[in-house]
Amino acid sequence: MKKIDVLTLFPEMFEGVFGHSILKRAAENKAVEYNVVNFRAYADNKHQTVDDYPYGGGAGMVLKPQPIFDAVADLREKGASSPRVILLCPQGERYTQKKAEELAALDHLIFVCGHYEGYDERIREHVVTDEISIGDFVLTGGELGAMVVIDSVVRLLPGVLGKEESHLSDSFSTGLLEHPHYTRPADFRGMKVPDVLISGNHRLIDEWRTKESLRRTVLRRPDLLEHVELSDIQKKWLEEIKKESK
Amino acid sequence: MKKIDVLTLFPEMFEGVFGHSILKRAAENKAVEYNVVNFRAYADNKHQTVDDYPYGGGAGMVLKPQPIFDAVADLREKGASSPRVILLCPQGERYTQKKAEELAALDHLIFVCGHYEGYDERIREHVVTDEISIGDFVLTGGELGAMVVIDSVVRLLPGVLGKEESHLSDSFSTGLLEHPHYTRPADFRGMKVPDVLISGNHRLIDEWRTKESLRRTVLRRPDLLEHVELSDIQKKWLEEIKKESK
Repeated sequence: MKKIDVLTLFPEMFEGVFGHSILKRAAENKAVEYNVVNFRAYADNKHQTVDDYPYGGGAGMVLKPQPIFDAVADLREKGASSPRVILLCPQGERYTQKKAEELAALDHLIFVCGHYEGYDERIREHVVTDEISIGDFVLTGGELGAMVVIDSVVRLLPGVLGKEESHLSDSFSTGLLEHPHYTRPADFRGMKVPDVLISGNHRLIDEWRTKESLRRTVLRRPDLLEHVELSDIQKKWLEEIKKESK
Repeated sequence: MKKIDVLTLFPEMFEGVFGHSILKRAAENKAVEYNVVNFRAYADNKHQTVDDYPYGGGAGMVLKPQPIFDAVADLREKGASSPRVILLCPQGERYTQKKAEELAALDHLIFVCGHYEGYDERIREHVVTDEISIGDFVLTGGELGAMVVIDSVVRLLPGVLGKEESHLSDSFSTGLLEHPHYTRPADFRGMKVPDVLISGNHRLIDEWRTKESLRRTVLRRPDLLEHVELSDIQKKWLEEIKKESK
């Protein structure tokens, strides 16, 4: 079973996300064990202070090294021999599906979530093994980033997704964006499903789906095409799509 | 007051995030009103079914158009004249701080979160105004993406962050990654704070911070430098940093 520890000042933030849907089912099925810890409990000062003013002046408070050093040391002892210690921060490596696959293969992950303050640099240098950013935007804390990473990792664990689910949405595995989906009714308030999808001709359906997948990718995320190996027929379709959209 | 509606099949997932810390305080201070709605309640069929098999075959279920069309129509009536309807999906526009600022200026946002299924394409075409992706990774549903967008938007609303907080972490506003932070003790178990930060010399401290900010950016995210206007002295420092790191 995979062990996921989370260090945060707001443990209750995780309850809704860990307690529902697929992440909940994964824990019930013993694919993963979540352990959310308030690192304030590790503060060795009388008032359990976890932050302090920055050296050199400036706005905002900085998370002190001691509580996080000691919390991680304690969780290391209780877990695998060499857990990865992941800090969520805008300065980190940009998170991708490839990193999700890497983390999904490990036994023990410890997430460190700061909340609107900065971290004392010694935490980064001596405790953290991976700094991750989920994107170029500013959040109120590291908690949501940790939830995003955990969600993307847990769904990859063996047995977590059913067969019906597992092939879905894996746009980034094929390298292309997904084609459009349609379900009943075929005519919804005058808006119709493309004829080909109702034709029953599976060769034409596959062709339509591949073309629409290429079309969406070239229109929305042409950068993704640089990393995809296309077949000869796909290359021909891509040229047609580019001509059409001019 | 800003109005934020969320359509989801898992309303309880949002409780922890909306009910703590800054997002909670923002609602208490009437800067924002959250309204999380289970769109299953809008299904007009006897069993309140919200999904169905995909036309053309394939794995997974597809969200039907009717419940989401009717839920959005109802929320539109109750809200501003022309709300933005935001779909979280991997095919969407990549989310950035600029988009957060754009959304923060609007009165009414409706978020549509699917959960591991696809959406009927007619929802995208006729209901949704903005498709957003928070990154190139696969999540179990749109809920975490919606929470991320909402968190980044709400913290920008007037009066939500205190003065102490508001200047923090806004790395992406200056275009550079933040410099390292340190707090007490100056010597933590043999790991020391850089002398300059304890010097009291504010010119040297500013210089150190700008240099470290440049250093971190050039080492970790050189792409960000393409969009930043540097002063002459900053350009000189950047050259020095590049030489040092060779």
